[in-house]
Amino acid sequence: MSAAVELVRNAAGRRVPTTVNGKAEVPFQGVNGYRPQGVKHAPPIRSCVDYPASGDKRVPDLETALRKCGLKDGMVISTHHHLRDGDAVAVMALETAARMGARDLMWFPSASFPAQKAVIKLMESGAVHHIEGSMNGPLGDYCTQGKMRGLGVLRSHGGRWQAIQDGEVKIDIAVLAAPCADAFGNANGVSGKSACGSLGFALADAMYADHAIVVTDNLVPFPCVPPQLAGNYVDYVVEVDSIGDPARIVSGTTQITRSPDRLKIAEYVARFIRDAGLMRPGFSFQAGAGGTSLAFVAFLREMMREAKVKARFVRGGATKYLVDLLQEGLTDYILDGQTFDLDAVRSMASDPRHVASSPFASYNFHSKGNTASLIDLVVLGATEVDVHFNGNVVTHSDGRLLHGIGGWQNCLTAGCVILAVPSFRDRIPIIVDEVTTLTGPGEMIDVVVTERGIAINPLRKDLLDAVRSSSLPIRPIEEIQQEVERICGGKPQKPARSDRPVAVVKWVDGTVLDTVWQVN
Amino acid sequence: MSAAVELVRNAAGRRVPTTVNGKAEVPFQGVNGYRPQGVKHAPPIRSCVDYPASGDKRVPDLETALRKCGLKDGMVISTHHHLRDGDAVAVMALETAARMGARDLMWFPSASFPAQKAVIKLMESGAVHHIEGSMNGPLGDYCTQGKMRGLGVLRSHGGRWQAIQDGEVKIDIAVLAAPCADAFGNANGVSGKSACGSLGFALADAMYADHAIVVTDNLVPFPCVPPQLAGNYVDYVVEVDSIGDPARIVSGTTQITRSPDRLKIAEYVARFIRDAGLMRPGFSFQAGAGGTSLAFVAFLREMMREAKVKARFVRGGATKYLVDLLQEGLTDYILDGQTFDLDAVRSMASDPRHVASSPFASYNFHSKGNTASLIDLVVLGATEVDVHFNGNVVTHSDGRLLHGIGGWQNCLTAGCVILAVPSFRDRIPIIVDEVTTLTGPGEMIDVVVTERGIAINPLRKDLLDAVRSSSLPIRPIEEIQQEVERICGGKPQKPARSDRPVAVVKWVDGTVLDTVWQVN
Repeated sequence: MSAAVELVRNAAGRRVPTTVNGKAEVPFQGVNGYRPQGVKHAPPIRSCVDYPASGDKRVPDLETALRKCGLKDGMVISTHHHLRDGDAVAVMALETAARMGARDLMWFPSASFPAQKAVIKLMESGAVHHIEGSMNGPLGDYCTQGKMRGLGVLRSHGGRWQAIQDGEVKIDIAVLAAPCADAFGNANGVSGKSACGSLGFALADAMYADHAIVVTDNLVPFPCVPPQLAGNYVDYVVEVDSIGDPARIVSGTTQITRSPDRLKIAEYVARFIRDAGLMRPGFSFQAGAGGTSLAFVAFLREMMREAKVKARFVRGGATKYLVDLLQEGLTDYILDGQTFDLDAVRSMASDPRHVASSPFASYNFHSKGNTASLIDLVVLGATEVDVHFNGNVVTHSDGRLLHGIGGWQNCLTAGCVILAVPSFRDRIPIIVDEVTTLTGPGEMIDVVVTERGIAINPLRKDLLDAVRSSSLPIRPIEEIQQEVERICGGKPQKPARSDRPVAVVKWVDGTVLDTVWQVN
Repeated sequence: MSAAVELVRNAAGRRVPTTVNGKAEVPFQGVNGYRPQGVKHAPPIRSCVDYPASGDKRVPDLETALRKCGLKDGMVISTHHHLRDGDAVAVMALETAARMGARDLMWFPSASFPAQKAVIKLMESGAVHHIEGSMNGPLGDYCTQGKMRGLGVLRSHGGRWQAIQDGEVKIDIAVLAAPCADAFGNANGVSGKSACGSLGFALADAMYADHAIVVTDNLVPFPCVPPQLAGNYVDYVVEVDSIGDPARIVSGTTQITRSPDRLKIAEYVARFIRDAGLMRPGFSFQAGAGGTSLAFVAFLREMMREAKVKARFVRGGATKYLVDLLQEGLTDYILDGQTFDLDAVRSMASDPRHVASSPFASYNFHSKGNTASLIDLVVLGATEVDVHFNGNVVTHSDGRLLHGIGGWQNCLTAGCVILAVPSFRDRIPIIVDEVTTLTGPGEMIDVVVTERGIAINPLRKDLLDAVRSSSLPIRPIEEIQQEVERICGGKPQKPARSDRPVAVVKWVDGTVLDTVWQVN
């Protein structure tokens, strides 16, 4: 990566590079400020003439499949992360490509996890040039140290679909792990020893890649039903013994937090929703699979029962807690973007009201609307939030890149966006003067709930009015900040970062929202 | 239409025009002879910025929707035919466009029906220029009389997807009837007073059109589940009192033929399948919804029961008869391309083993394989078959164009293709020296079953051997032909047709297979 990157200040006041990995980029133009031009990416037309009439697309191994896909230096290899920290396929694919002599590959995962830290070796050997995609843990750390040859590009789940659809990233070979597949390439995540529920993150890859390989440890006779991923997009099918570690693909049970502070936050969130009048018949909400989110759902469930209020739909991060709502009749539907535990996998497999959704339907901003903006409220986390309600989910206050964006940015168009965060972590305050890395503009974040009080964005006078007479601890954000700084002994230290970009954060429309800088 | 159309002889020996409606065409190059170049059609990138954040895309009426879509002279307006002869939306859309003053529209239905004959008036007034799509009955007749200003273009279901996907036909505005929809545009066919089952024929239109309008008589709160058609492809939603006549959308019950001759054909087909060894555990078959097909399914069912043979999947044209197989455990799955009766609609709505499939998965030849070639055997009809086993399904022996292709051509890649036809109709022999219009090349048609005997294509020595010792009346096709000609008093009269093309028949790869000529 050249050190002579030109930087401009974007509409959020952040300095961002004008080119990323050799491509010109549009700086963030403000929320809703950018309108795309042109047409969607057009993959090559294929013909049945070139595929076996029997439908049997199996080849003996991944090496054969990659060779038949024309693996070359510099290609973009994509994978999905529905197997989360249990995934074995991404590293298998990249190590196979490396063994075959490929160099300078770009790895384009929908997210990467600590279990994939072997990719660091592949970057050091030159087989992988850089990663574009969420980097959780060691890979993000490696990136922040300035060791990656290209810039990291962090995109939201919807932003990744947008980038593929709009041709910003052209995938040469998609290598798609499938808990269940047939020899034609139809695949789903709802059955098999490696079941993971939805396969939504793999769909854009299949639709738009030049070549797609399905890798499965559970081959069934045609047809694999439901065909979440259509074999008509698939070139080759590879059978392997195992696509991953089931224990880390889904947790047997997801756990509600036991921390008294987190429980307090969760209860505040639920009470806020109730008291602000958001918990009305037919409402909808989205919650993640973290301990605080699960606790919030449990609190809200009690309140819904008590008030006899039924939701029209809930989105997640599906877990046992959402499944319970469905089965108890407290929601008509679950729209499931990612399936986190075995209860949710089983529910998706058996209950037509538990709908597998994709980032296209849920999150893609370059589409004719999406689900995210229809949701009444969403509860999200953050690593930092600043006094202007700007949010950061990717770096810590020390500047290290340790988390992906997930669907976080996409969810900010919900009717009410609530950040549920502890006021400090490891004695580092979460409410800061200015976020280390801007991931979500403050104008889109409505409420910050901590164990020390609830701050409402002054732009949301309606919410301030709605809870004025409640018993909730509504406080100015600066007041909570100051209290926490007293406890922690001051503001967080400024990160010791250089002026060298190591990654960029894209906004949902493909523009560049912020830069992650090398940490010295 | 200019009379000075240049004609060439294609690989099937048929004279076809080199340009159709002003566009250069590729003449048929033989089965599997043509390989497409280039990339898929790329529709414009849209942005959520331009769609309501509430997800409410409703507009008061179709006129408003068409105006907002920028209706202009010469545009391509597409509709689907899942409501069959009960559809009210296509005529509603075209008449609305005509009232708004639009001229020279191209109507691009997935099929047209007698109930839509009002479009003849719109062609006469100049609002509609011509039709590309199957024309059943009066519209086909009108075309054969040479009255349409453009050439008709007949495509199979898979060929229509191919043409849209490959950019051969660019849809300006898709007007999509939906028995169930939400205000965001998510839609399905499984519920509501106008329920029709699958909406598969509408999907290519939604994905690739510049603009898409959903028209529904059954608006439900978001989300409409299952979202067979994703609202993310939809611009506007229009509510109307009725999208069609339920009685003609689905038949309450589909009827097995009572004709002794047809029953005999159906029984021969079933016996052939059994005796040729095709009815083996895990086999698959496809059958239509006509009376003979239904009777064949009933006969085969008895044989499957008796032999304790279970199919892996059946495709259709889904009816009660396929649903019975599923419920009795005689097949694992139904792959449903079109849902013909209320039993099948209910089955699709409630049984996850009854899978809605689309022409993309089933039939699109310009894809990485499709389902059609994986099916062990298919039973089809025909208007004519010749002694070289060439088939015709679009014209009668008098040259009149009265039928669409449906999925007929697409099914010819099945393992064994059986035409089940009466040996004559209205004293006109069905087996001819040369088909009036070539719809399917003889090399792909394996067996012709009539009430007077079964003819096996000499290319299929394996089938000839397999049934050699059976009691089935296996006869050379010429022998059956001669017998029928004796009964009917000779060969069919040659059609009194001119040398002026009025329509072309496309092959599944988009090349021109044959020409339909004006009938004098």
